[in-house]
Amino acid sequence: MRTNPFDLHLERNPANHAALTPLGFLERAALVHPDRVAVIHGATRRSWRETEMRCRRLAGALVALGISKGDTVAVMAPNIPALFEAHFGVPMAGAVLNALNVRLDAEMIAFILDHGEARVLLTDREFAPTVAKALELVAHRPIVIDIDDALGPGGAALGEMEYEELLATGDPDFAWSPPADEWDAIALNYTSGTTGNPKGVVYHHRGAYLNAMGNVLVWAMPHHPVYLWTLPMFHCNGWCFPWTVTALAGTHVCLRRVEAGAIYAAIADHGVTHLCGAPIVMNMLIHAAERDRRPLPRPVDLMTAAAPPPATVIAAMEGQGFRITHVYGLTEVYGPAVVCDWHAEWEALPAEEQARLKSRQGVRYPVLEGLMVADPATLAPVPADGATMGEVFMRGNIVMKGYLKNPRATDEAFAGGWFHTGDLGVRHPDGYIELKDRSKDIIISGGENISTIEVEGVLYRHPAVLEVAVVARPDPHWGETPCAFVALKEGAAATADEIIAFARANLARYKVPRTVVFGPLPKTSTGKVQKFALRDRARALD
Amino acid sequence: MRTNPFDLHLERNPANHAALTPLGFLERAALVHPDRVAVIHGATRRSWRETEMRCRRLAGALVALGISKGDTVAVMAPNIPALFEAHFGVPMAGAVLNALNVRLDAEMIAFILDHGEARVLLTDREFAPTVAKALELVAHRPIVIDIDDALGPGGAALGEMEYEELLATGDPDFAWSPPADEWDAIALNYTSGTTGNPKGVVYHHRGAYLNAMGNVLVWAMPHHPVYLWTLPMFHCNGWCFPWTVTALAGTHVCLRRVEAGAIYAAIADHGVTHLCGAPIVMNMLIHAAERDRRPLPRPVDLMTAAAPPPATVIAAMEGQGFRITHVYGLTEVYGPAVVCDWHAEWEALPAEEQARLKSRQGVRYPVLEGLMVADPATLAPVPADGATMGEVFMRGNIVMKGYLKNPRATDEAFAGGWFHTGDLGVRHPDGYIELKDRSKDIIISGGENISTIEVEGVLYRHPAVLEVAVVARPDPHWGETPCAFVALKEGAAATADEIIAFARANLARYKVPRTVVFGPLPKTSTGKVQKFALRDRARALD
Repeated sequence: MRTNPFDLHLERNPANHAALTPLGFLERAALVHPDRVAVIHGATRRSWRETEMRCRRLAGALVALGISKGDTVAVMAPNIPALFEAHFGVPMAGAVLNALNVRLDAEMIAFILDHGEARVLLTDREFAPTVAKALELVAHRPIVIDIDDALGPGGAALGEMEYEELLATGDPDFAWSPPADEWDAIALNYTSGTTGNPKGVVYHHRGAYLNAMGNVLVWAMPHHPVYLWTLPMFHCNGWCFPWTVTALAGTHVCLRRVEAGAIYAAIADHGVTHLCGAPIVMNMLIHAAERDRRPLPRPVDLMTAAAPPPATVIAAMEGQGFRITHVYGLTEVYGPAVVCDWHAEWEALPAEEQARLKSRQGVRYPVLEGLMVADPATLAPVPADGATMGEVFMRGNIVMKGYLKNPRATDEAFAGGWFHTGDLGVRHPDGYIELKDRSKDIIISGGENISTIEVEGVLYRHPAVLEVAVVARPDPHWGETPCAFVALKEGAAATADEIIAFARANLARYKVPRTVVFGPLPKTSTGKVQKFALRDRARALD
Repeated sequence: MRTNPFDLHLERNPANHAALTPLGFLERAALVHPDRVAVIHGATRRSWRETEMRCRRLAGALVALGISKGDTVAVMAPNIPALFEAHFGVPMAGAVLNALNVRLDAEMIAFILDHGEARVLLTDREFAPTVAKALELVAHRPIVIDIDDALGPGGAALGEMEYEELLATGDPDFAWSPPADEWDAIALNYTSGTTGNPKGVVYHHRGAYLNAMGNVLVWAMPHHPVYLWTLPMFHCNGWCFPWTVTALAGTHVCLRRVEAGAIYAAIADHGVTHLCGAPIVMNMLIHAAERDRRPLPRPVDLMTAAAPPPATVIAAMEGQGFRITHVYGLTEVYGPAVVCDWHAEWEALPAEEQARLKSRQGVRYPVLEGLMVADPATLAPVPADGATMGEVFMRGNIVMKGYLKNPRATDEAFAGGWFHTGDLGVRHPDGYIELKDRSKDIIISGGENISTIEVEGVLYRHPAVLEVAVVARPDPHWGETPCAFVALKEGAAATADEIIAFARANLARYKVPRTVVFGPLPKTSTGKVQKFALRDRARALD
């Protein structure tokens, strides 16, 4: 056999190959735009030069604490500069960033600290009560650094040192190295698993770099965006936006607490151009009190995920001047990996039809190599008929390395060479996918599959409904029937019969809820409705 | 030693790792925007669905001809759809695309076909005279496919088949595979070496993918750009724009011949948003006849490289509504790899100062990992003082695999772990680099280095000068002195004494040309001034 001349004496070498890593974005922003504002936090403004020095200091200080490759550094903080800096400083020390969900309880935090083997914990004083308890529970206590944020409410100091003191020990010229291998871990993010222990999703430098780029491409981001931190950085590393916005030498506007007034103020005062958030953020903006509102100085791009935004919500937001981009993803795929890529010709359609198109999850990110809806047993793709349900599968470079210390779960997730999302959906004739349900949420009534998302979508259009969740209720005749849990808007009223009549006017008969229960919806720490709790309640109804 | 838990049972697998390749951009454009216009060529308009099918047909047809991994497919064509399709169809067959410079002579084409071991040659009939001669000279005749472009001037058929016939033999559903390894070659581009045989620069899929993305980032490109093909696709694969524009599901506007009238017409008629070109394209637009001009319907982004654009040229172009982005690169780095990243605050400076800033080469692309100006012997970076000259070095993922079948040249190019560009420049205090010369072009007069680019930049400001090139003339006393070759604008007049007086008013005395020669400048096939020929002429002056 002939030797391939293109493989001969054309090997990788330090001149023509480097590990892909988002860390270089920071160095470049500081080199090219040293004086631009990198971070805004209350009255504090820091340039890219300053920010890069702080990240180098953090890396150097961590190394001085004994941190090295493969060590975990956990951070318990809201969207403040310290957590942003950790997205660079921790991996610049060769370590792995584990951003903790601040809404978790002490037991869960303790589990994660032990499972992730955190050697250092940076913790904002606001969360001292939870963290103090967690530190009593852990098998191995990490080195604890308090973050005393001037905008925080205070709280006990638990640690060996304060964050700014730690930085002061670090060298602003610390000579960090890129990872030896782009497959090296950069972050560890625990799933919010509604049952059982959370799983530790491991990200690598390659994926973080690529999804940071992917965000630029799908959102057609300009140079120097002003990005408002409404999405928690502890969710999939803020969907990789700490790295994306830095690649564009933009400005990170921090936000300790997600409130309508603060969001409108940041948009008006700092010229925010982009923000991300779950539908709950949109609801918050739509229902904001008059005194909290400020007019948008120009259109603002908002990326949303987690649940398909109801048409009414999209319409209300766009009426205010927000341009909504709908994405879909999971912790296992670095945040968003699928986008409802918009077609210019859709602008001519009626608003309702536009909203229907926009509520679909869409197509793969350019940096995700494969996306399909398929039979979970055979992996055969379903027909693109918009009707045949299957499981959503993904593959490619923005799929996680796997679950930390959990080979069984990793193997299951990757069985057949595709990542199993556990989400059910359809593929439309135009190739766009639409989620119908989580596989465990689907209702099977008289042998028919009922998408709880579809039923919820209809009930959301009822003018009195603020929030709704539909789950299966056991039924001796049908097997299961739909049961709707409804939270009404303040001051609004509706009866169960009215809700059911509304559903009947808009849904196939077998999909209409037989039961309607009013009251607030239980939520997980990440703001998702706890359907497992509602299923328990539905089961317990006499 | 402790095992790193982040490396345990977290290996690459088909679910979480795929070879980076630009080929997936085409599949995605066809899936997501099947009906958008992908290619415009005269009256022909093809959608992304059609274009993808044609590329699949091409790949399938090549495989049927016996082409497989590591084989070379050469194309001799201007910027027409066939050459664009080859950027996808050839690597979809596993093969390597060798786009030939249509301005080369038969001997050079024959050398390249033999050296690159082309197994198939697609050739536009316009170039039949050259190609027929080349095919008589080659040691191994490739399979020849004629391209009978309807907009071409015709010419003899040399081959076994016509391009459309070839496509007809291919399967529109041909199941191509991504490369097994992203390090696999995707393209082969010969340098235009002014002396000796050209060298074959090998690109890999990883680099093509990354620089395609890099273009999006540095140019902040929107979705669906309308890109005019003024830059030859046979130059560094059109700086990777066949892949970039496809990643954005934009429109490729083909152009057989680069003429001012055709450019203005395409901008007005097709809504062109982006184009690239050497300064010669800008000169063409600035000096276009009135009948060829059309007003720009909106600002048009123009990326230029090859020589620092003189301030007067930038000012004239921007006055017409072009926004100039200045980049710098070489065949060895996939085209542009350095960009004069713009600062908003520079907009407030005087036009002359803005042009001076813009004529600098700038900073690294985000996808180039290293850029420095350093001592070529020690690789020690020069101080960032804007004055100390050194050689420009680059390293990272958009540096070539190496030179085909030329291990010595490859090793020399990569000595010390950096790619040696052979260009001389300085680094300014703000980190931006500025080229001063090719190392072989620099003039050494009385022990002082004289940058020919600097002298040319001054002479370009003289109102009668159209083009100028400065080279060394041997001098018994000084060693060398600057000799200026000047082409005057049509209808303009100037004497050698006037040119010298103008230079004296604007340059240090030792940099002023002692000799001025009027007349047209000799150019290489790629439009670069042939300084080696001018040096010969300067040496021959009595």
